[in-house]
Amino acid sequence: MSTADHGARRAALRRLVADHDLDVLLVTDLLNIRYLTGFTGSNAALIVDAADEPGAEDRTLICTDGRYVTQVGEQVPDLRAVIDRSSAGALVRALAQRPGVRVGFESHVVTVDALAAWQDAAPHLTLNRCPRLVEGLREVKDEHEIALLRRACSAADLALALLIERGGLRPGRTEREVGRELEFLMLEHGADGISFETIVAAGANSAIPHHRPTDAVLASGDFVKLDFGATVGGYHSDMTRTYVLESAADWQRDLYDLVLRSQAAGRAALAPGVAVGEVDAAARSVIEDAGYGELFLHGLGHGVGLEIHEAPGIGKAGTGTLLAGAAVTVEPGVYFSGRGGVRIEDTLVVREQEPELLTLTSKDLTIV
Amino acid sequence: MSTADHGARRAALRRLVADHDLDVLLVTDLLNIRYLTGFTGSNAALIVDAADEPGAEDRTLICTDGRYVTQVGEQVPDLRAVIDRSSAGALVRALAQRPGVRVGFESHVVTVDALAAWQDAAPHLTLNRCPRLVEGLREVKDEHEIALLRRACSAADLALALLIERGGLRPGRTEREVGRELEFLMLEHGADGISFETIVAAGANSAIPHHRPTDAVLASGDFVKLDFGATVGGYHSDMTRTYVLESAADWQRDLYDLVLRSQAAGRAALAPGVAVGEVDAAARSVIEDAGYGELFLHGLGHGVGLEIHEAPGIGKAGTGTLLAGAAVTVEPGVYFSGRGGVRIEDTLVVREQEPELLTLTSKDLTIV
Repeated sequence: MSTADHGARRAALRRLVADHDLDVLLVTDLLNIRYLTGFTGSNAALIVDAADEPGAEDRTLICTDGRYVTQVGEQVPDLRAVIDRSSAGALVRALAQRPGVRVGFESHVVTVDALAAWQDAAPHLTLNRCPRLVEGLREVKDEHEIALLRRACSAADLALALLIERGGLRPGRTEREVGRELEFLMLEHGADGISFETIVAAGANSAIPHHRPTDAVLASGDFVKLDFGATVGGYHSDMTRTYVLESAADWQRDLYDLVLRSQAAGRAALAPGVAVGEVDAAARSVIEDAGYGELFLHGLGHGVGLEIHEAPGIGKAGTGTLLAGAAVTVEPGVYFSGRGGVRIEDTLVVREQEPELLTLTSKDLTIV
Repeated sequence: MSTADHGARRAALRRLVADHDLDVLLVTDLLNIRYLTGFTGSNAALIVDAADEPGAEDRTLICTDGRYVTQVGEQVPDLRAVIDRSSAGALVRALAQRPGVRVGFESHVVTVDALAAWQDAAPHLTLNRCPRLVEGLREVKDEHEIALLRRACSAADLALALLIERGGLRPGRTEREVGRELEFLMLEHGADGISFETIVAAGANSAIPHHRPTDAVLASGDFVKLDFGATVGGYHSDMTRTYVLESAADWQRDLYDLVLRSQAAGRAALAPGVAVGEVDAAARSVIEDAGYGELFLHGLGHGVGLEIHEAPGIGKAGTGTLLAGAAVTVEPGVYFSGRGGVRIEDTLVVREQEPELLTLTSKDLTIV
């Protein structure tokens, strides 16, 4: 596996910290710490100091507890580690020794009680709300991250192909059985874990956007909607395919074709600098023009990476524009309540030229 | 399945709210909302008003978004529901219409930014830190909860028995393969989900307390430590067993026997009113007396319920006493670094008479 350049990520963060007129950012979100250092333990805090230099990060400190002494040395050889069970508390006490230091903290994840405890421990230290700095960096993926996303998507593609090849999608099975088999196949073929609880929705259940698998039995003529993903190295894939069992009725062919055209329009709209609302509109207008606008019940897509849902959100009310290197989903759906629904979803990377498709399973109408 | 009496839980909470000189508690932790109402959606907030009465909870309100209109009606038929995407924000604005109302909020989970947004939306409303009220109630399980814990433990027991019966634990397999099969068997035999990432640690890896399964191959003479659990209805089981493959050396028998005696002493110490530190000491002293105190690297146990780790913590530095109805683990371990380790863990319910064992798999030294 390629090695992520955590030092480059910290250098980018230092520039942001300085731009916010701060000396240090106290990072306590564990995914952000993983992104910035490679550390995967369950207890950590990190000080990133704007005055440090690449290769000489003397003021940058990671803190974790005694369980992770060996692990932090292996995963983060390039930073000084402090071993203290209170992690963030220990770093706050260390910062309190630096008079006048301007400290930012991740106020979108730090609880009211945690902040109060820090203030009690360091009453003269000023702690400034500074949310989502690292999340902003994470929105644009580097090639190391895209390689992991590709592997996660590939595990999902392969598992789905094997499921169908071995006849796993057939009348008489339950949604739950199909979901378990799909998850098992992902884990057998390259996935470290499951991105989220697999959605398997058959027949009328396919009209429920986020249906949880039940003991409902798949029947001939059903739509079967599968929304699922794998994780590799912490990165998530996300894909939805909708199949028809044994034979498709005309209304099913028409509905499928509509959602497929909408999804293609959404994918075609992905480019750097395009407003996320415009991307949503490109896909939504296809469905609205067919008269089913109010049956497309959710946004078009979302960013994907160390979290299954992260920036940018791609919806009607979304703000901001797409950045080159963002990894996003495009997933329009139309749901006929009580009857059935179709959603088709890919994970893609926004590129200067055309977007790079990471989920490669065919989107042609497939009757299994 | 028996139906939980959510109304009784809310009545107990109302008494606590009044004891804290508050009129209402704004509950935003989703597990606490599930515990108090049965609602399992991913977006919700709840006002519990101390002035309400059982059967006439006119001021008690649950808020969720449009995706959950049907679900909240089905799961929470006994409370008024407000549909608003901002959930907690909407309830804060509703509270702002009640001059002088004394509001508590869950400051251990509410972020600094969320509180700031509420204060902006309702500048004249006083919001008081009031952490862990519901968690305190959750520490003592009712019989409905214990029934779910029993089913979760039973799925784990059955899966482990089947794994061994079908020869799943044998030299030549990898830790990862064993972990996947054990998880698959739990899901096939009554589990809704997996409690946490299954630990399978063979040979020298068994000396790492929280080892993640790798492609390491099981070999004859290895300790194999399995720490795993199932969820049923949201409730978690937690069990560890350590086996020896094919033949046990004397040091392995001695080590196993030591940990087994320690675990029995810990279980025997579980009773209402006993200080958690005393329970830890009961098990730890057995290991200390054998000269291995410094190789027992963690606390003795923890509460288990809607979360895999919850109150009470049972450790050296723990405070407080056990309550009748608490569900806890007892899990001493001794780890010979580079060589192998043994941990034996059960989930039990503290009872007035002897503790009720929920994980029923044999703890006799088993050579597979």
